[in-house]
Parts: sequence; structure tokens; C-alpha cells
Amino acid sequence: MSIPEGFQEITSTMPPLAQVNPYGPNPSDYLSNVSNFQIIESTLREGEQFANAFFSTETKIEIAKALDDFGVDYIELTSPVSSEQSRKDCEAICKLGLKAKILTHIRCHMDDARVAVETGVDGVDVVIGTSQFLRQYSHGKDMNYIAKSAVEVIEYVKSKGIEIRFSSEDSFRSDLVDLLNIYRIVDKIGVNRVGIADTVGCANPRQVYELVRTLKSVVKCDIECHFHNDTGCAIANAYTALEGGAKLIDVSVLGIGERNGITPLGGLMARMVAANREYVLSKYKLHKLRDLENLVAESVQVNIPFNNPITGFCAFTHKAGIHAKAILANPSTYEILIPSDFGLTRYIHFANRLTGWNAIKSRVDQLNLNLSDEQCKEVTNKIKKLGDVRPLNIDDVDSIIKDYHADVSTPMFKPKRNGILKIPHDLPPLDDELGKRPRYG
Amino acid sequence: MSIPEGFQEITSTMPPLAQVNPYGPNPSDYLSNVSNFQIIESTLREGEQFANAFFSTETKIEIAKALDDFGVDYIELTSPVSSEQSRKDCEAICKLGLKAKILTHIRCHMDDARVAVETGVDGVDVVIGTSQFLRQYSHGKDMNYIAKSAVEVIEYVKSKGIEIRFSSEDSFRSDLVDLLNIYRIVDKIGVNRVGIADTVGCANPRQVYELVRTLKSVVKCDIECHFHNDTGCAIANAYTALEGGAKLIDVSVLGIGERNGITPLGGLMARMVAANREYVLSKYKLHKLRDLENLVAESVQVNIPFNNPITGFCAFTHKAGIHAKAILANPSTYEILIPSDFGLTRYIHFANRLTGWNAIKSRVDQLNLNLSDEQCKEVTNKIKKLGDVRPLNIDDVDSIIKDYHADVSTPMFKPKRNGILKIPHDLPPLDDELGKRPRYG
Repeated sequence: MSIPEGFQEITSTMPPLAQVNPYGPNPSDYLSNVSNFQIIESTLREGEQFANAFFSTETKIEIAKALDDFGVDYIELTSPVSSEQSRKDCEAICKLGLKAKILTHIRCHMDDARVAVETGVDGVDVVIGTSQFLRQYSHGKDMNYIAKSAVEVIEYVKSKGIEIRFSSEDSFRSDLVDLLNIYRIVDKIGVNRVGIADTVGCANPRQVYELVRTLKSVVKCDIECHFHNDTGCAIANAYTALEGGAKLIDVSVLGIGERNGITPLGGLMARMVAANREYVLSKYKLHKLRDLENLVAESVQVNIPFNNPITGFCAFTHKAGIHAKAILANPSTYEILIPSDFGLTRYIHFANRLTGWNAIKSRVDQLNLNLSDEQCKEVTNKIKKLGDVRPLNIDDVDSIIKDYHADVSTPMFKPKRNGILKIPHDLPPLDDELGKRPRYG
Repeated sequence: MSIPEGFQEITSTMPPLAQVNPYGPNPSDYLSNVSNFQIIESTLREGEQFANAFFSTETKIEIAKALDDFGVDYIELTSPVSSEQSRKDCEAICKLGLKAKILTHIRCHMDDARVAVETGVDGVDVVIGTSQFLRQYSHGKDMNYIAKSAVEVIEYVKSKGIEIRFSSEDSFRSDLVDLLNIYRIVDKIGVNRVGIADTVGCANPRQVYELVRTLKSVVKCDIECHFHNDTGCAIANAYTALEGGAKLIDVSVLGIGERNGITPLGGLMARMVAANREYVLSKYKLHKLRDLENLVAESVQVNIPFNNPITGFCAFTHKAGIHAKAILANPSTYEILIPSDFGLTRYIHFANRLTGWNAIKSRVDQLNLNLSDEQCKEVTNKIKKLGDVRPLNIDDVDSIIKDYHADVSTPMFKPKRNGILKIPHDLPPLDDELGKRPRYG
């Protein structure tokens, strides 16, 4: 047992913990907006395209107010030409006087633009398919037609004095030269931002970074990005887009949208707070995230996914023995997010066979009992033994500890128990806090 | 309305659709294993650290067989020193004669190694914390101690003729020089693979790519990666790790694990099948994914998340009018995955106010009715009008269409209806296929 010849002894040169944030913004990304991003919240547009979504006017207003209170920069609404009520709802939300700017999302067409600018929105998000798939099977137009329509719509919206974004659709399956051409045209006219949309959810992070970097060298305006989550990369793609110089990210609450949706607001917050906690805390009321998610989940009749970032029921629950031990010493050992930033609580799940004696010792202390380390190890083995037989809950563990404590404290005055523990059976499988909810979404 | 001066007319130079896979492997990644990766399936190790998990022996065997049938390359099991039953279960699974290689996961310690090699496993995965956080608050050892322990354990496991992996823990918060030093030492001894672990879920994709690329220049052995999902990047990080030259990815079914878990098997399959469909289909039985997820979800008492990649209830449901129109013409317009690859079905959700007349025309055809395009547009407006008032289902739409058809076909013989439609109320909010499940996880 020795280090092979030719290798130096290892000495750590790591600076003090507090100064280290290796997962923060990359200093080599000089165009990065990781610490200077904005959110275009699209629950009331993309989210309305979620299979389960039917938002009444009252619900839309409630969601818009909650989003505004959370601190999103923009709120995007369904096109007013989708239906009569969609138009009225758009007008109603514009009149609420929210801090967030109100946008509506339309096809690149004068018919839509004329209706949109009359609703009172602060800006219009225009989109048109640019991939050969969409040009062939959706609108059937060529790139010259797209460019001419775009110029007409953009000049019209600008003449009304409101913001305008031009986005391609299915950008990652579009021809790069076509894309750069059209973006340069609209930038020259003077749009507020151009949009890149991964409409089918095919993009991967390094590809996103490359496209954003390339586009950044072609246009002066801001870049907005929209990522679907079909292949599970919507949060990561948003992050790399910001690293590459994009400034605005489209999100929805819980990511609801077409198919399995887009970048979720909560997931993006998790990513961004890990990168620059101060910036995120200064802009967004993270402690309102859970209520916001519950509001939207209720209105579209879904449960919060069990594995949701931040608000999943066990996002801050630590179970394995070595994890629990370290968390008790310093939560940063196994946590990159701080639960209290979100108004949430950390749990140690020690009622199971993977538990370790450090966690049990901590529980012994909580119960105001006095056991030595050796005794804690012995009682931990008893807990593991029962944990091998069936799921445990916190009462099981407490009973075993109290019973053991009584045995070792007053050996003379207690009847022999023959190893039988007084444990109520048929209890819920988890500890008290978790056991309240019998099945998780 | 014209293209500004100085801009060329745009001509598309896009090659035919079938030859284009811009979201496939990047040709510049000459070390990429995107088309040559392996899966280490850890539902029975990392997954057992999920708050809700209690796997009986029978359940473990059922899950192991299902994973093997799916085609995973390795199955990783809980350390045999966790509890007496954990050791027995490990031995039992080794005796099943599965095609997949069986691994167990232990601390970097001879006490654990001696027990592990006696269980009959094909390999041992050794892990030790290397970040200053873990060195200070978990095991309390310095890098020299870690290196010496590693050498001893690795040589012992190798002497038993089974596979050995050495992994650091919390790799992305570890000092880079420390990491490369220890990896070079263990590579020189001759491990089968070294592991990088994003234990706290802080890593981002480009950072992963850089670390893997750097490590690839230091070691000859394979590289395995393990990503937690706290900040929503576990799938993307796995993909960029493969791009950088990692070969093996740790996953669990539905991503279950500590906190909100790790890279999910299904999500990784979605990502990889988008990159190289032939390779993935040749190795893994994707049509068994849903049953596998249901088996694990049931055993840990969770629902499949509503937005799960591939198997989320609406992952292949298209709603907005322009989406539905294009999907009817060619599903690839808005789908990067093919539902039938997974034994699943595509849905068009046309019973809502966002619907378009192309989708309604398609429904008219399905009902064997005959309406002109203009008539389809008119009936679509009626559907939108009711869709503004309340959620619709497929029966609502069919009633409106049939009623309209009867009106326009036999105007003389029908009593005046005054716009009142015969639509049953109190129906479930969605179309038939979706409406069967009243609330989604």
C-alpha cells in the first residue's frame, strides 16, 4: 500500500471555502449574461398550449399578478387572434398596471399584428417557421417571403411605439445562412430583440452556445431564447445560451407548454441561483416560488412532480448515512441550494436501513437522551435490522432508541424483553414530515 | 415593405430533409462517445437513497430483471455493508445469471472491499469525497490518505479478478490538480474506469465538457460520470460528458436518488435517440421503458411526472392550431422523437380554443362528413367560441361538427335551433384519450 513511484505527494492548494464558486459564471465568457439575464414568463401563452390548460379570465389575472409579484421581467400572453376571449383577456391584463411588461405572441402576419397592437401590450413577439420542415409543411413560404413579411410587420409595430421581437421557429433545424440573413435584416430595421427557438426540443447545450455566439457577432439587439424539453435539456440550454450572450429566457411555471413543455421557471431559478445567488435574490422573490407553482398546478390539474427542482417533496431530503453525517456537520457538503432561500426546510431521513450512527446520535440528542458513541452504533444496528424487514418511520426509530436507552439506563428494574420492540405496525412508510402526503406527484 | 438595401435575396441551400441531423454527434468532437456509450443503472443503489424507497428482495429482483431485459450494460447495487439484508440481496442478484454486469458501490475502505468481493459481483465501484467540503466535514482525510487508501483497495479488488472503478465524490468542487493527481495514480495501477461525480448537482454542461476533456488527456481508462439534478442539468451534463469522451453514464429509473435524484434513464434515452437513433435502438428495448418506469414508480409510491420525457402523459400531444396543422402534414415538423419507437401514440388535442381549421377539417374527414374549407373555418369559429367559455372534450367538438353538418346539409327539414348546441355538460375537461386519467402526476 503506497503511492506508485513517480507521483508526488498530493498537497491541496484549495483556497478557503467561502471564496470558491467554481460553478459560477465562466470568466472566459466575456459576452455572458449569466449575471444579467431577464425572464419572459410564458405560462399564459406557451402554458396555454399545455394539453390540460384552460385558463378562465379570473385565473389568468390571478396568475399574471402572482408572476408580477414574483418579479418576472415580461409576461407573454396568447395571441389575441386565437379567440375572442383571448383578445379580451389580453386587454384586461394590460389594464392591471403590473410592473412586468406585457407581451403578446403572434404569427408574422399583418392581420395578427393589427389586432395585437390595439390590445394595449408593451410589446409584440413575432414568430415564423424557418426550418425546411416548417416552410414545407406549415406555412409553405420561402425565405424571401418570410423576410418581406417580417419587414412589414416590424415596421408597423415599431410605428406604434411598442417593443418588437422577431423570432425564427425551429431555429436549430434551419439553415444557418438563412437564419443569419433574416436576423441581420430585422436587426438593421431595429427590433428590440431576436429570438432563437428550439421548437422541437432537439438542441444540445454546446450547439446552443455556438449558435448564440455566432448570432451575437451578427446582430446588435438582445437575443431571446426558447427551449422545449423533449430531450430534457431545456434548463441547461437556457444556461449555456446566457453564457453565450443571450439575455432573455422564455420560461413557464413548471415548464407547461406544448408536449412536455419548455424551460421551467423554478428549474431555471435553481440553475441561476447556483451561478449567481445575489443577482437572483435581488430580482426575484424565490420564497414565492412554491405558491406560484401550486397555483398553476392546481389550475391545470397536475401534481408537482416528485423530482421537481427546489419544490419536489424531497429536494432537500438527505438519506444515506454518509450524506446525513456530513449534512449535520455542514449543509453545504451535499447542498448547492439553500432551502431557506425558497422558504423551505431541510430534512434528514434517518428512519431506514441506509442510516448511519451519526444521524442516529443526532436524533438521540434531539430526544434529550444520553448515549455514548458505542451505544449509538449499537442502537443504529438495531434500527438497520428492522429497516431490513420493512419501511420505518420516525416513531419506529424513536421507540427503538427510547427502548434501548431504558434498557441500558436501568438494567435492574426492567423486565427482560427478549429483543421484542414495542413498535406500532401499519404506520406510514416514512417519517412524520414526509408521511403526511401519502403519494407524491 | 421591401428588404433593406445592401441585403441579398435569400435562397435556401438546405439539403434534402433525410440527410440532415444537425442535432446529432458533433463531428469536431473526435473523442465523442455519443455513439458508443454504456449505461450503469443505479436504481438499486442511488435509487435506494431516494426518500421513498424501500425495496424488498422480491422487488429488487423484479427491477433487476426488468433492467436487464431493457438492455442496460451494468446494474449497480447498494453496498453490502449497509445492512445484512443488503448483502444477501446483492448475493441473490448476482446469482440470477443476468446479461448485465452486476456492480456494488462501496466506500474507499478495505472493510467494505472485503465484504464486496465476496458477494459474487462482476465489479466494485469505489468512491471517496475529494472536495474540501467533504474532506473537512465527512471523512476528515487529506489527499495523501485518499491516494493510499485507493491504491490499497484497488489492488485488493484487482487481485480478485473483478472490475474496479475509482470515483471522486463532489468532483466539481474539488481542486483540479488534486483530482488529476489521484486519477493518474489509480489509472497507472490499472482501474477499469475512473468516475466523475457531480454529487451536489452544481455542474453545468460546458464545465463538464472541459473537465472530461482534460481528464481524457490524463488517463487511459474509461471515464464514467454521475450527475445529480438539483439544478436541472443532469441529462444535458451526461450528454456533454459523452461528447467530451466519457463512456459510461450513471442513471436510475425516473432519476430517483438522493434529494431530487440523478440523470433519469428515460430522459437520457430521449437525448441519445435524438442524437443517434440507430445505436440506441440496437442496444436498448425502448418500448419497455414505460413498463419499467411504472414498475419503479409503483414500488416507491410516486406518479410519473406529468412532464416526464417520453412517458409524460402529453409528451406526444400537440395542441396549438399551427402545430396541429403541421403535424397532420408531417409529424417531424414538431417532433424530434418518434412515439412508436417507445410503443407510444401521438395525439392531436383539437378540442380547445387554440384549435385551427386544419385540425378540425381532419376531424371532419375522420367522421366521414363532407364540408368545404370555408365551412370548416366556420365550424372552427363555433368551436373556438365554446372553447372560450369552458374546457371542451372530443364529444363537444364532434357534436358541434355534426350539428353544423346537419344544418348545412338539410336546411329545409330541420327545426330552427337558435344556436343552441346539443352538448352534454359536466364532461371531463379533455378529449377521450386524455380524459380517462382525471389528474396527472
